[in-house]
Amino acid sequence: MKIAIDAMGGDFGPEVTVPASLHVLRNHPNLSLILVGKEEIVCQELEKEEGHDASRIEVHHASEVVEMDESPSLALKRKKDSSMRIAINLIKEGKADACVSAGNTGALMATARFVLRMLPGIDRPAICSAMPGIAGSSHLLDLGANVDSSAEQLFQFAVMGSILKSAVESINAPSIGLLNVGEEEIKGNERVKNAAKLLTESNLNYMGFVEGNDIYKGEIDVIVCDGFMGNVALKASEGVAEMLTTFAKEEFSRSIFTKLAALMSRPVLNAIRKRTDPRRYNGASLLGLKGIVVKSHGSADKLSYAHAIEEAMKEVEKSVPKQIETQLHDHLELSA
Amino acid sequence: MKIAIDAMGGDFGPEVTVPASLHVLRNHPNLSLILVGKEEIVCQELEKEEGHDASRIEVHHASEVVEMDESPSLALKRKKDSSMRIAINLIKEGKADACVSAGNTGALMATARFVLRMLPGIDRPAICSAMPGIAGSSHLLDLGANVDSSAEQLFQFAVMGSILKSAVESINAPSIGLLNVGEEEIKGNERVKNAAKLLTESNLNYMGFVEGNDIYKGEIDVIVCDGFMGNVALKASEGVAEMLTTFAKEEFSRSIFTKLAALMSRPVLNAIRKRTDPRRYNGASLLGLKGIVVKSHGSADKLSYAHAIEEAMKEVEKSVPKQIETQLHDHLELSA
Repeated sequence: MKIAIDAMGGDFGPEVTVPASLHVLRNHPNLSLILVGKEEIVCQELEKEEGHDASRIEVHHASEVVEMDESPSLALKRKKDSSMRIAINLIKEGKADACVSAGNTGALMATARFVLRMLPGIDRPAICSAMPGIAGSSHLLDLGANVDSSAEQLFQFAVMGSILKSAVESINAPSIGLLNVGEEEIKGNERVKNAAKLLTESNLNYMGFVEGNDIYKGEIDVIVCDGFMGNVALKASEGVAEMLTTFAKEEFSRSIFTKLAALMSRPVLNAIRKRTDPRRYNGASLLGLKGIVVKSHGSADKLSYAHAIEEAMKEVEKSVPKQIETQLHDHLELSA
Repeated sequence: MKIAIDAMGGDFGPEVTVPASLHVLRNHPNLSLILVGKEEIVCQELEKEEGHDASRIEVHHASEVVEMDESPSLALKRKKDSSMRIAINLIKEGKADACVSAGNTGALMATARFVLRMLPGIDRPAICSAMPGIAGSSHLLDLGANVDSSAEQLFQFAVMGSILKSAVESINAPSIGLLNVGEEEIKGNERVKNAAKLLTESNLNYMGFVEGNDIYKGEIDVIVCDGFMGNVALKASEGVAEMLTTFAKEEFSRSIFTKLAALMSRPVLNAIRKRTDPRRYNGASLLGLKGIVVKSHGSADKLSYAHAIEEAMKEVEKSVPKQIETQLHDHLELSA
């Protein structure tokens, strides 16, 4: 299996992507990687690390870099030799089975869509990621690629999410929930109600409407929503977590006594942090494309980025795009 | 000032609403309350409490109760002698300046809209509530009353939120943010983009797009979104908080050592809880009606419910509906 790495992408570029790549290579003897980026910089990082299997690593030069705040359409039009573009091209050319990038999400989406094209029957790509939860982990999609999704598109997201969850976690018939403002059937807007109708008629394991708090219960395998909802839910959650962290820091540093309490609670706080660690959930899938593209958080560190590469590996092993193509066809035939 | 209390509403009914009412009466010598509900039950609760000023409290019998899970349209059609309906009628009849209810949100909304009617120029009511935040408290609206809002409706929400914030917190020209999937101007769907255009052209203190995490930063006075977004953001936030609480409980109870840490950290954990206590933020305003209606959480306790009554008092003092009517007119003239 060969995976292309956009070595320049993300807040830290090769400083993170190169050590992460070597880390994953060590653990997976059948994996080869193509590091795409400015050759000089990438090789410099490679030289810092010792004892890696050079036969399974290849550096592919790309003269440009897509900036994190660059307009997706401009990046697509003007940066034809960017590390991101070249990494995606390698899939198209059959030289890589997947690509991983921590770069500009909009540009990655636009470029992947332009170069790889959509699978037949899928209108738009969706971003899907695992979320931390009390009883387990739910996959949530779409996370920001689409701001207005029709009922049919929400149905497509459900099919894609179900296949991804089933593939990467070996779950048979994952349970599917549709995000809404209440669990009662009369709740929600027309799009959501119509999507519920399509899901009820399908052979997906559809459980009905779920609400925002269900994302973190971890009882439903896949939660479907449009990208606006997904983005708002995710960002609001980050906001709460940030607020609680800020308040905890302030309160724990008020006095000698609270500082002592903080010291004593450190193992507990670390355990909580570990259970909700975004690094364990890093690696969002761009679903619906004729190829496997995994997006890492821009601020990912080595272990986090390594997790995103392993996510791509799982999707290659299970041929997720191929499965989506076949199964969507079956679902559409069924509902037709 | 006279406020009607839907004494039967909420998960606990008169057990909470009556003691809360008496608590608020004690602190506000100019306030009178009308407790609406089953006379026998309400009087029974009143008898439990001693030393209240009976001259400022009145019991108004209502033979029916709207159940928490009852269909709003059925409640509206069939329960014409419910405590909720009668409490709202008292505003319409000029016998009360406002009403507070912890009952079924949908039924409260439908009944208030039917009995009181909308202010001229406002299409739909919005639910608005203060949220906890790092730097201060933002008001968020709409919180679930409307699932699809046009650009014009989002603009109306902004006007109403601005007036409410200005009235209850004495802030001059509150800052307004529009919830979106990114801060860049090109982001979002057509409705949000058009609402941004209306807001930019208005004389509101519009700051631009904000994201989900800005809700908990507390740097923007009023954050505007449609009810679907608002509900998803709120419920997702509850979900995260619940997950973190569950994990904290589990981790703090793992061993003697962690239990000791929990004991030592109790003052800190209590301080954090207090700063984010939903009770301090209880009392969501139903805005856009020809009258003041405040919704308490169904599970509110005495202090929490008292807070909702005080919220209604502030809105009466500042004649919020009258202000909305006048200022919306000014804003519309300006933008016409």
